[in-house]
Amino acid sequence: MLQIAVDAMGGDNAPEAVLEGVRLAREQDIDIVLVGNPDDLDADTLATYNLEDIELIEASQAIPMDAEPGSAVRTMKDSSLNRAAEAVRDGKASAIVSAGNTGATMAAALLKMGRIKGVARPAIATPFFVRKKDTPNIMLDCGANAEAQPEWLGQFAKMGVVYTRDAYGVKIPKVGLMSIGEEASKGSSLVKNSFEILSQKDWQKELGCEFIGNIEGRDLLVDSADVLVTDGFTGNVVLKTAEGVATEFFKSIVENFGSPGSKATDPFYEAMEPVFEGWNPNNTGGAVLLGVKGVCVIAHGSSNPTAILNAIVLARDSVANDNVQHLKDAIS
Amino acid sequence: MLQIAVDAMGGDNAPEAVLEGVRLAREQDIDIVLVGNPDDLDADTLATYNLEDIELIEASQAIPMDAEPGSAVRTMKDSSLNRAAEAVRDGKASAIVSAGNTGATMAAALLKMGRIKGVARPAIATPFFVRKKDTPNIMLDCGANAEAQPEWLGQFAKMGVVYTRDAYGVKIPKVGLMSIGEEASKGSSLVKNSFEILSQKDWQKELGCEFIGNIEGRDLLVDSADVLVTDGFTGNVVLKTAEGVATEFFKSIVENFGSPGSKATDPFYEAMEPVFEGWNPNNTGGAVLLGVKGVCVIAHGSSNPTAILNAIVLARDSVANDNVQHLKDAIS
Repeated sequence: MLQIAVDAMGGDNAPEAVLEGVRLAREQDIDIVLVGNPDDLDADTLATYNLEDIELIEASQAIPMDAEPGSAVRTMKDSSLNRAAEAVRDGKASAIVSAGNTGATMAAALLKMGRIKGVARPAIATPFFVRKKDTPNIMLDCGANAEAQPEWLGQFAKMGVVYTRDAYGVKIPKVGLMSIGEEASKGSSLVKNSFEILSQKDWQKELGCEFIGNIEGRDLLVDSADVLVTDGFTGNVVLKTAEGVATEFFKSIVENFGSPGSKATDPFYEAMEPVFEGWNPNNTGGAVLLGVKGVCVIAHGSSNPTAILNAIVLARDSVANDNVQHLKDAIS
Repeated sequence: MLQIAVDAMGGDNAPEAVLEGVRLAREQDIDIVLVGNPDDLDADTLATYNLEDIELIEASQAIPMDAEPGSAVRTMKDSSLNRAAEAVRDGKASAIVSAGNTGATMAAALLKMGRIKGVARPAIATPFFVRKKDTPNIMLDCGANAEAQPEWLGQFAKMGVVYTRDAYGVKIPKVGLMSIGEEASKGSSLVKNSFEILSQKDWQKELGCEFIGNIEGRDLLVDSADVLVTDGFTGNVVLKTAEGVATEFFKSIVENFGSPGSKATDPFYEAMEPVFEGWNPNNTGGAVLLGVKGVCVIAHGSSNPTAILNAIVLARDSVANDNVQHLKDAIS
């Protein structure tokens, strides 16, 4: 397997968290090429993480977390994100992993790696932990496209089905369309037109999946649909709403009941550990950009080393299970 | 003050929960007229709730919770919702309160009470409990309009400002526009065009409010904007996502840590009571439909007597503070 290109400069805790995550990944025999500025990745620094012998693709620039994605990718030609995506384009790497600027990661992947033939728009697929379910729910698009066409949502559904099967082994994925009521007549014209496309039987038969109709916001975290299809505006708002509610809930527990680390509070936190660990974005490995010619994993900006490790494992698995080829087969 | 028309037939627990809620409201000297089927509201039943002397507007039909709103309101002319809205139109009541079919409540209000002059579309304003903030955040539109125009969002903002001031005493409400990034360049074309309208200074000065720019899903439950403006599709998805995440969080606590009622779990539930009570939709009184000629309170379908009481109090307060007149002044 070709090596995985990891953006050493991306994320709130770069490069330290990234380097430690890479060290952990190499312990699992994953072959990695680092991409970044040699000034930040000197021999001493690399030695701290047992990375003396790692291959380095030099990139003198790092795109800031708050830069305007399109122009940053166009003007910062020697940025780590551009160099990482070029490594995939040039057959030197099989995947990119970055915890950096999400929009710029997407733009670099799109510009350098290119779209899969027939894909109208790539989409960000984000996993959500579901209580009493072995596999996460996948929602797409979580923000690649602020506006969408019904045909694009039809493709998002196909890509989501292929990804859910490859990544999580869901044999007959159930697909739901995010709306504001269960009936086919509910929702915006985008949703109503997408419903017509998704309810056709041929694509479901071809891909071995089942369209279960409209779903609602409350289905995000329940065992209803495996693949939740929506436009990138709605998906991103839903993602951030869910994160926000969970954060406020957790803060309110600490504020009212107390932090972990006392005899009174520990039984609660110990009992809740599986839930908190399930919801912890560091444990999911991040989102993937589906529809580009190569694997592109977008890790959370606040990724710690565990998150980086999980993102690299996700990339490795996506390469190993040939997800990009399966996406090509499904779309073309 | 004119009496408040309460739909006795609306909601999952009607008429019992409604009648008990009405009894509680009358203990606070709120003048109420019941609307519903006399067969269900016979003397014996009413006596059970000390409502022997209550005025009744007879309506032989009740619109089911899952009926298609538009056609139900048009065809079920003698439904409790139509009769309640007509009572406001005819000057016999000042407000309607219903825990029934939301779409039908909206349709009946729109059809019978009519829009305020100049209002393009009414909007549903829903309150969200915010930790460490005295007043809730109000989001609108939470589902009256599946699609929207930038000018409508401009009006939603105005109505939200007036309502937040009247209902919660927020002197200089902060208005945020739901988007997928803080920059004005982020979001759908609807959001970008709405941003232009909202950022104009004249309306802010006129209404005494401040537009703080784009907000994101994670701002829903934090002290950032008092009025969160969005289209009815996004608003409804956000509302149901937030409800769904909170529900799953609560279920996961009961499942992993245990229910209230034991020595081990009670300290947690006692400490968290203010939070759970804050988030409990029964305590908010429900959402209001802004932009129609009269007060229209939409209670949660699962309302218990406390929820009905709070919805009636909300209606009484909206009438008392002359919210509809203030909306007329702001829009015309």
